[in-house]
Amino acid sequence: MSNRLPFARHEFIDRLTSMKQEMTRRGFDVAVLMDPSNIYYLTGYSGLSAYVPQGLIVDVEQEEPIFVTRMMDVKCAYHTAFMRPENVIGYPEDMIANQTGDGTDFLLDVMRGRGLLRRRIAVEKGSNQLTLSAWDKFSGAGAAHPIGDCTRLVTWLRLVKSPAEIAYMRQAGQIADGAIMAAVDAIRPGVRQCDVGAAILAAQARGLPGFGGDHAIQPNIGIGPTTDSPHLTWTDAPYQLGQATTLELGGSRFRYVSGVSRTIQLGKAPRELVDLHEVTVAGMEAAAEAARPGRVCGDVWDAYDAVIKPSRFRKTSRIGYSIGIDWLEWTASLQSGNRTELVPNMTFHMICGMWEQEGWGYVLSETFLVGANGVESLSRLPRQLVVVA
Amino acid sequence: MSNRLPFARHEFIDRLTSMKQEMTRRGFDVAVLMDPSNIYYLTGYSGLSAYVPQGLIVDVEQEEPIFVTRMMDVKCAYHTAFMRPENVIGYPEDMIANQTGDGTDFLLDVMRGRGLLRRRIAVEKGSNQLTLSAWDKFSGAGAAHPIGDCTRLVTWLRLVKSPAEIAYMRQAGQIADGAIMAAVDAIRPGVRQCDVGAAILAAQARGLPGFGGDHAIQPNIGIGPTTDSPHLTWTDAPYQLGQATTLELGGSRFRYVSGVSRTIQLGKAPRELVDLHEVTVAGMEAAAEAARPGRVCGDVWDAYDAVIKPSRFRKTSRIGYSIGIDWLEWTASLQSGNRTELVPNMTFHMICGMWEQEGWGYVLSETFLVGANGVESLSRLPRQLVVVA
Repeated sequence: MSNRLPFARHEFIDRLTSMKQEMTRRGFDVAVLMDPSNIYYLTGYSGLSAYVPQGLIVDVEQEEPIFVTRMMDVKCAYHTAFMRPENVIGYPEDMIANQTGDGTDFLLDVMRGRGLLRRRIAVEKGSNQLTLSAWDKFSGAGAAHPIGDCTRLVTWLRLVKSPAEIAYMRQAGQIADGAIMAAVDAIRPGVRQCDVGAAILAAQARGLPGFGGDHAIQPNIGIGPTTDSPHLTWTDAPYQLGQATTLELGGSRFRYVSGVSRTIQLGKAPRELVDLHEVTVAGMEAAAEAARPGRVCGDVWDAYDAVIKPSRFRKTSRIGYSIGIDWLEWTASLQSGNRTELVPNMTFHMICGMWEQEGWGYVLSETFLVGANGVESLSRLPRQLVVVA
Repeated sequence: MSNRLPFARHEFIDRLTSMKQEMTRRGFDVAVLMDPSNIYYLTGYSGLSAYVPQGLIVDVEQEEPIFVTRMMDVKCAYHTAFMRPENVIGYPEDMIANQTGDGTDFLLDVMRGRGLLRRRIAVEKGSNQLTLSAWDKFSGAGAAHPIGDCTRLVTWLRLVKSPAEIAYMRQAGQIADGAIMAAVDAIRPGVRQCDVGAAILAAQARGLPGFGGDHAIQPNIGIGPTTDSPHLTWTDAPYQLGQATTLELGGSRFRYVSGVSRTIQLGKAPRELVDLHEVTVAGMEAAAEAARPGRVCGDVWDAYDAVIKPSRFRKTSRIGYSIGIDWLEWTASLQSGNRTELVPNMTFHMICGMWEQEGWGYVLSETFLVGANGVESLSRLPRQLVVVA
């Protein structure tokens, strides 16, 4: 259908086949997905429409799923999803901001009309997209069986990447590197923070001569005193000599994201920042060395912790997570005690964010692909504390 | 507390006072907010941390609210929220990706420890941030009274803007205009779509010499055949002579967004596109004329419809909505039959998106401030079909 599919039809069909096998194993006949990243994974649908009700109906007995969305977004699906047009169904525009019936009611009517309410249904009960109101509608729809829970069923299938997905993530890694370099080029005394932001966002979209970036991804940026904080953005204040910048950002290629972070010092770096940089690099390299098939996520954390603990610095938060479509995947977590086993073709954003100090901090991250014999970084940047002046 | 508060402390206190009056009217003693835009409105908190549990506890008997968030984001709150440090409480990092307890459990423990579970509590039951799991925890926490619903209680308070908010939205309007002009400058045959995207994103962040933009906002962009679709993005294909671009974007100033849309034709415009442009401009101007205090939102829609209906074009979706923090507010809707009355200092994104044709479309939008004697556009762009070659 679509003239800009990120994957061949057979790759979507293979993903759906894996999903249906898992559904059958859990006793589900029909799954209704609302997580936009999972919908994208299974279909390619990429309209920015998840702020209104929509759902993907996967029936173990049908090859293609059915996508129910707002009428104006049906053509977004024609342009981006792999299914035939008859498997995209729009609900009327007067169901938007309507107190008496919304897209979830329509979706349930579609299911009722096709006899799906007699089957064993599951929804993503843990998804932010499934509001209490939508859940009440599912619960009260008169389904023949209790509604099951398929939260993260698809998210777990996304954990091990295909060759085509890895190709996009490598490109995303190069886009991300370019955005870091654009920031390094832009940071100078007197330059406004927002102008550095402009350089970053432009590099994320521009990508490389051979391929571009797609979605705007807000970087996390700390400058001066806010380098102790992981999730802030720029202001329009001018840069001052002596300020450090902690910059975490992602490149996005067909919504596959590789994350990378560097700390950039404007002017001479304080001794304590250099010390923290050195111990963090050593920690990341130990953790990367531990990230091998057969080990578990907790082992990777332990390797990092073994380097940091003897130092005078502290790290209490996890050091990363599985990454792919739209950034973070809520599955494997590089965290103390985590028992998820590493297997080849998993991808992790290993984020060594050192925010425990008051008033200053440091961040270093890369996205790693797990291979049979160890990890490969998707970043080609040197692991430096970048000093500009 | 914060060194970069977007509003004076008294403005936050005034907003909280209005909220507490409404809580009292509805019989609530304590409200727990999870909607990030509402939390920002009441406190200034601006960490990008809503992907993990967090909540703002507003007690009618306390001047300041209490913000509960992940430990690493406590300093994000110190830097951005107006409250004293003792009113920001972090939960341990090992509650992230934890199967046995998460931030919602911690938040409920905080409430229990302060005796708040004996009071009449409300949560935003309609918020995407309140997962079923979080709701189950609230329901099972042993509160003395049934948990009430304060969905959109704060969102409705945001509908009428203060002078300080209007000042930011005017600036956001100028930023948005600059981003449209950057796109117009960039669109040429052979230029990659993603390079036009880079120009747009850079202009959104850069803002004007006197003030910058802040958050990255993904534009909605249709190019050539995808101009029939409202919610897609660019690819890295090169522009071709003859292609139209439908571009909807926002400028963001301290997270206050003004939206604006224009259609840009590369090369000679087809007659049907010119016709659609002309009828849409006439419709928008009629709708803007109808947007006066004392009229209702449905009247604005009716004025638009009265122009479109006699033409050969169709419009079934609404023509706008209240806009402010983080773009769309789910309150007033410029839609057939909507009874919300217009009052001065409301702000609407009037989006006249004409996507009913197959394979081509047109979009025109501006953000309007309702004044005592009519609306004022926050855009200074001419209402043209922009033709470049």
